[in-house]
Amino acid sequence: MKKLAGTELTAAQQEFFKTHLAYLATVDANGNPQVGPKQSMKVLDASHLQYLEKTKAHAYENLKAGSKAAVVVADKPDHTNVRVIGTAEIHENDAYAQKVNGSDDAGNPYVVVISIEEIDE
Amino acid sequence: MKKLAGTELTAAQQEFFKTHLAYLATVDANGNPQVGPKQSMKVLDASHLQYLEKTKAHAYENLKAGSKAAVVVADKPDHTNVRVIGTAEIHENDAYAQKVNGSDDAGNPYVVVISIEEIDE
Repeated sequence: MKKLAGTELTAAQQEFFKTHLAYLATVDANGNPQVGPKQSMKVLDASHLQYLEKTKAHAYENLKAGSKAAVVVADKPDHTNVRVIGTAEIHENDAYAQKVNGSDDAGNPYVVVISIEEIDE
Repeated sequence: MKKLAGTELTAAQQEFFKTHLAYLATVDANGNPQVGPKQSMKVLDASHLQYLEKTKAHAYENLKAGSKAAVVVADKPDHTNVRVIGTAEIHENDAYAQKVNGSDDAGNPYVVVISIEEIDE
């Protein structure tokens, strides 16, 4: 596993995100890990990921409390995986959430934008 | 997502682990999440998971330092996922590791046994 100097996803890594299910890990108030698939996770641009969700699940609570976000996409046959660590910003009832969700936004789903700080492949 | 009272995987959940790639999340010394696929993760018995690895990667360091282990297996088409939280015990250069690895064990790969404390589906 090599650590890349930059914090920008390559074109190949962005394509990999499009075609594989992403998993998001966060840390809860007790310092324990939490992990789950995020089907709506996508590449917003080379240095940001984004997902949206209707339910305020564990990840939401943890990110809201300041947990970093760790995201991985992996391919079993290829033995390839791309890992990202970043800081999450949660948008709910704001202009950005309304823009993403369209005019029928009622603050739900909320939108999480992850600013990439580290990429490993 | 319902929280199950017990800490034992049902037969269906055990089968689900057999047929899907598991992801393991841990917490590092800075309190940040780390996540990656674990291809060797398997059900040892209804209340224990096990994986083995040749490289002492992030997860190894974190579990060694006392991080809980969070494991998820998910199915995109089915929208099913099984999550487990547990405590990890790392075996290296001991009788159990030798038994798992066979007579050519040189303390590598190490074997991680996760005692299940919580199951969500």
